[in-house]
Amino acid sequence: MSGNSFGKIFRITTWGESHGQAVGVVVDGVPSGLPLEEEDVQVELNRRRPGKSEIETSRKERDKVRILSGVFDGKTLGTPIQMLVENEDVESGEYEKRKSKPRPGHADLTYKLKHGHVDYRGGGRASGRETVGRVAAGAIAKKLLDMKGIEILSHVVRAGGVGIEERPSIEEIRNVPEENNMKCADMDVASRMEKRVLEAENDGDSTGGVVEVLALGAPAGLGEPVFDKLDAEIAKALMSIGAVKGVEIGSGFESAERRGSEVNDSIRFKDGEIVFETNTAGGVLGGISSGAPLIARIAVKPTPSISKLQKTVDFETGENADLRLEGRFDPNICPRIVPVAESMMALVLADLMLRAGKINPDKLEGGK
Amino acid sequence: MSGNSFGKIFRITTWGESHGQAVGVVVDGVPSGLPLEEEDVQVELNRRRPGKSEIETSRKERDKVRILSGVFDGKTLGTPIQMLVENEDVESGEYEKRKSKPRPGHADLTYKLKHGHVDYRGGGRASGRETVGRVAAGAIAKKLLDMKGIEILSHVVRAGGVGIEERPSIEEIRNVPEENNMKCADMDVASRMEKRVLEAENDGDSTGGVVEVLALGAPAGLGEPVFDKLDAEIAKALMSIGAVKGVEIGSGFESAERRGSEVNDSIRFKDGEIVFETNTAGGVLGGISSGAPLIARIAVKPTPSISKLQKTVDFETGENADLRLEGRFDPNICPRIVPVAESMMALVLADLMLRAGKINPDKLEGGK
Amino acid sequence: MSGNSFGKIFRITTWGESHGQAVGVVVDGVPSGLPLEEEDVQVELNRRRPGKSEIETSRKERDKVRILSGVFDGKTLGTPIQMLVENEDVESGEYEKRKSKPRPGHADLTYKLKHGHVDYRGGGRASGRETVGRVAAGAIAKKLLDMKGIEILSHVVRAGGVGIEERPSIEEIRNVPEENNMKCADMDVASRMEKRVLEAENDGDSTGGVVEVLALGAPAGLGEPVFDKLDAEIAKALMSIGAVKGVEIGSGFESAERRGSEVNDSIRFKDGEIVFETNTAGGVLGGISSGAPLIARIAVKPTPSISKLQKTVDFETGENADLRLEGRFDPNICPRIVPVAESMMALVLADLMLRAGKINPDKLEGGK
Amino acid sequence: MSGNSFGKIFRITTWGESHGQAVGVVVDGVPSGLPLEEEDVQVELNRRRPGKSEIETSRKERDKVRILSGVFDGKTLGTPIQMLVENEDVESGEYEKRKSKPRPGHADLTYKLKHGHVDYRGGGRASGRETVGRVAAGAIAKKLLDMKGIEILSHVVRAGGVGIEERPSIEEIRNVPEENNMKCADMDVASRMEKRVLEAENDGDSTGGVVEVLALGAPAGLGEPVFDKLDAEIAKALMSIGAVKGVEIGSGFESAERRGSEVNDSIRFKDGEIVFETNTAGGVLGGISSGAPLIARIAVKPTPSISKLQKTVDFETGENADLRLEGRFDPNICPRIVPVAESMMALVLADLMLRAGKINPDKLEGGK
Repeated sequence: MSGNSFGKIFRITTWGESHGQAVGVVVDGVPSGLPLEEEDVQVELNRRRPGKSEIETSRKERDKVRILSGVFDGKTLGTPIQMLVENEDVESGEYEKRKSKPRPGHADLTYKLKHGHVDYRGGGRASGRETVGRVAAGAIAKKLLDMKGIEILSHVVRAGGVGIEERPSIEEIRNVPEENNMKCADMDVASRMEKRVLEAENDGDSTGGVVEVLALGAPAGLGEPVFDKLDAEIAKALMSIGAVKGVEIGSGFESAERRGSEVNDSIRFKDGEIVFETNTAGGVLGGISSGAPLIARIAVKPTPSISKLQKTVDFETGENADLRLEGRFDPNICPRIVPVAESMMALVLADLMLRAGKINPDKLEGGK
Repeated sequence: MSGNSFGKIFRITTWGESHGQAVGVVVDGVPSGLPLEEEDVQVELNRRRPGKSEIETSRKERDKVRILSGVFDGKTLGTPIQMLVENEDVESGEYEKRKSKPRPGHADLTYKLKHGHVDYRGGGRASGRETVGRVAAGAIAKKLLDMKGIEILSHVVRAGGVGIEERPSIEEIRNVPEENNMKCADMDVASRMEKRVLEAENDGDSTGGVVEVLALGAPAGLGEPVFDKLDAEIAKALMSIGAVKGVEIGSGFESAERRGSEVNDSIRFKDGEIVFETNTAGGVLGGISSGAPLIARIAVKPTPSISKLQKTVDFETGENADLRLEGRFDPNICPRIVPVAESMMALVLADLMLRAGKINPDKLEGGK
Repeated sequence: MSGNSFGKIFRITTWGESHGQAVGVVVDGVPSGLPLEEEDVQVELNRRRPGKSEIETSRKERDKVRILSGVFDGKTLGTPIQMLVENEDVESGEYEKRKSKPRPGHADLTYKLKHGHVDYRGGGRASGRETVGRVAAGAIAKKLLDMKGIEILSHVVRAGGVGIEERPSIEEIRNVPEENNMKCADMDVASRMEKRVLEAENDGDSTGGVVEVLALGAPAGLGEPVFDKLDAEIAKALMSIGAVKGVEIGSGFESAERRGSEVNDSIRFKDGEIVFETNTAGGVLGGISSGAPLIARIAVKPTPSISKLQKTVDFETGENADLRLEGRFDPNICPRIVPVAESMMALVLADLMLRAGKINPDKLEGGK
Repeated sequence: MSGNSFGKIFRITTWGESHGQAVGVVVDGVPSGLPLEEEDVQVELNRRRPGKSEIETSRKERDKVRILSGVFDGKTLGTPIQMLVENEDVESGEYEKRKSKPRPGHADLTYKLKHGHVDYRGGGRASGRETVGRVAAGAIAKKLLDMKGIEILSHVVRAGGVGIEERPSIEEIRNVPEENNMKCADMDVASRMEKRVLEAENDGDSTGGVVEVLALGAPAGLGEPVFDKLDAEIAKALMSIGAVKGVEIGSGFESAERRGSEVNDSIRFKDGEIVFETNTAGGVLGGISSGAPLIARIAVKPTPSISKLQKTVDFETGENADLRLEGRFDPNICPRIVPVAESMMALVLADLMLRAGKINPDKLEGGK
């Protein structure tokens, strides 16, 4: 009820404030017998860790994960997996100074109105730091999906007003190099994006963009009719990421402009298998996976933390106030959303694979 | 788990196949003491009923609702409210003829793959007829919200490639006349929309569009942090409507193109209240309502039922096949989605009002 | 949240007030492909129907069930199954007269305190009539379990202060004849029970007893560790039946008096299978089924409706008051609890079979 | 779904294996503004800690709790509260030796059958050590309830075949001294209990007993009708404690032997308040609290760990085998169940207070 949990069978609960002692996640519903070690999770946490490039906040965190339970002799037990990451770089002086002034575009104001007593340091639970738990849990979900031949990919398709024009191949998306700061599969577009992002940063401003997430190899039949449709679950999962203001599936908003004859994907038999001639549906029909690749895109708003002067209120004085933020911000959050978006997609699919009976909830085959 | 329920405290379960005996909904979690009679629900069902204009399917249904439980002496009891609507116009000959050929763009194929045994008549649960239950439940949610000063509105902003250019006033949206077939607040745009919709229909084709939903008067503090954010819940609710392929909040995908200084809504005190100078956020900050109007928009794909020849497979012959649909279709589904979208928004808010403790779950004040 | 639903995957929601238009249940989570017709449900409803003997209330109800959804061509669809039974014998004059005086031992008082506005006629939702929905849903659960070789049985072991001394055989329990008013497998004890029950009734009083429920053939591995243990789920399910004041598993309260060496059931291999030399555990170890028969017993309090003069309050006068009930009561409710207890056990097991992945949630094998 | 969580609004998830790195609990749904420090939790953990007397296992654990999140400036934030206790005394040699031989009366066998891959050291999740999380969470629930004037008490009423004959006063139960090894309010009975417990231990055997739990000051109206009745929730909560084989409410199994006129508690006005002349109902009518003290009792089986020779199987040899356990056991677990039973009752009531709208889920009054 309190919103810190996600999933029904593969169910995670993230915990921890940005500037508290630690952040983490407990992952419940993982069947026994999945090989798992800390390094599997660490690899994914390293992908989301800040400070790797000029366009990311310089907050320094090693983000070393510890698995405290649920794994024995290198394999999961079917019991809750608790993972913990200590917070290290938690200077809070900057926050102290402006704790009575909610930052525009941030959750400061609404958390205050909802809970009264808040941890004003670094956004508390609304901080991007909460995604440590999501990504750690996502690493386990990915491992589980991998056993079933499902692969999750994500890449940036627009940023700073610049976007790809042609859809890159799966191979290109899969191989976006780690040193590609924008996580855009088209290297040329990536460098134009980065230029625009840095321009805005120099103006004390920030930019947004669009991130795409794909799932390959998901079997037909995932998703529950009516309210828990696959696309509805994906929409919720992705919209729950901070800064996301829109979600679309397949051709999404563009399909609203077209005609039925253009949008209905023709169905064909090919070598005894059912295939589609096109995939405007993004892999979902009637809320249930069709076997075609799942495709979703999210609109990411510009990072709300900017160094330009902004207008807000001051709860202490009860007056309007100006606010100029100082500190470390991501001028464009899209590349750092990539591993988070992958994690959310993985969490949705791991849960739906279990819900559809395609993974045994008690133990993996051969896990005896 | 099976996807037929929505909400946590204000919780509904819809039931019934398109061409079965009846459709309906059981609504649980309504506090005792809410005045309710069948007419309150009937009014909303009449708004969604087909056959009211040229651009809607001509299926004839009186859709007379019966409330079977949960109400006594004109007021709710706090017990489950069961509502039932008989199916009347259920000729199934057309479906019988092509039951082995899944319609492109429909759920026929995926339901078959998921469940094996299906009701092929009229789409079963995937039919638009399932929304009778949503709208009936939404009528109750709206009544409950109305007591707390919350109003839900919806209108069509794009259809058949034509869209409004200026945002209509709340007053204009509230007063879209029932005889406005397109449910578009700008009468001029409405007539251009209708022209394009009918053109496509004459070509044996269909069109899509964009529908906006608003909630006015929602208090600050609704939505649960992290995963059950208000915008995440809205995204799931709206994406669960058939034919919806995208959801955006506030400036949505457009905000992805802008800079932080343009998108951060300035916060001000005005007469002791907190207000925002703009509302690009659409009323949500960090997943929690800010007190500003809630604004969401959905991308509606063209109705998949078209009379043009389409390519599909035949499960009986195991061969590819052609398919030409005959019968009654909505050439553009946007106007009929208006009451459904309102219902989903109302269901989300009624549930979140209860979850945030802003409505007593056992009895309404004065309901003694 | 509102307490009208039971189960997580095989999930039911009962609805309807005792003296409203109808009562019923929607059953969600039944896989597609289960053969089902109204007669399957009617048989079980007939077992719970009142008025079959002298020791049951004479309320006349035909309790004819209608299945309104979820079944097509004689098999389930995997969609919600709505079942409805009209209320016929709903004279409410008696209730009208004493509506301001809560009956001792009944829920009148607490419903009033909780909800304010109540349906005072016949106990509303707290009436035994609510169990129509449980038994209808239980009939489906039993059918599903039967396909997996699981059988549910129940019998009365104590009533009116008289109890069986020796455990009857499974065969004897299975074959308690329908005309055995006490539903006790030992005919001699049954007739002594009945004598004591009628004696008390002649005194204007009522009696209680103990009902046992068994499940045979349940596989090892059912139940989830820690909080959702099999025995915890059974305890909740059975305690949720009106008039039940205690639940015990296996040797239950008696085992509290014994030593570990007497209570630990020895484990042995027999023909390659694991068996237990005794079954004091009642088929559950650490909250998980062991493969041995599941055994639970419930304490049923005397029916609170008695014709003796009782002391209560009058909300209208604000004074203490006397109350003498007139009308139709069950002098001992144990025999009528038998089908309800079976239903609750069946609902627990059907849900746990699905949760443990032992039944495919989407479709039964061969249900293609 | 995986059974490691309890509660709907006040929701906990315990994690950790007996001999893993740590055990703990994440507590979600605590409103903001509750004063909380580690010492509040430590006090309760000290009550459950083993090794305090001759009748408890000599496993040495300091059980020092760390609160890692959810608390700031001495008050809760409304965010998840993660609490962690390191495991210190985790010698596993004894378990290693007999890992292929399931201990009778323990969960070894059923966990193996369910999950295949298990942590055989000390019972894993089925260990009494899991209750560290329950008691830590219970400490928070108790603090919250205390603010609403609700007090939870528990005491041992039978052990080793010896029981109290007269109900002690609330004052006596409240003041059972910490050095009373049996946690029985009647000092004379306590010493006879202890004698019998030690006698059995000298025989290499163990004993069981009965523990009572009370809640004072709970308002009328708690519990949800039909399936989530207060007594049903209590039954599940208490039955989920290891070694518990029965639960009864109020007069429980004894009321099954009596007549309605003896069991119906007369209702009276006293100083404008509704009171009952007796409390055979144990504070619950129709599944909803009446305002009278809540009373529940549980049957605790003899500790399954005994040093007598036992019969079991050996999975390695595939043969029957003998087993003699060596190590540290509780000869009677009742006194150590006292704080656990209190915790479970507190968790049920904290959750139901929130569900009934009697505590604001977002912030405590004055928590602004």
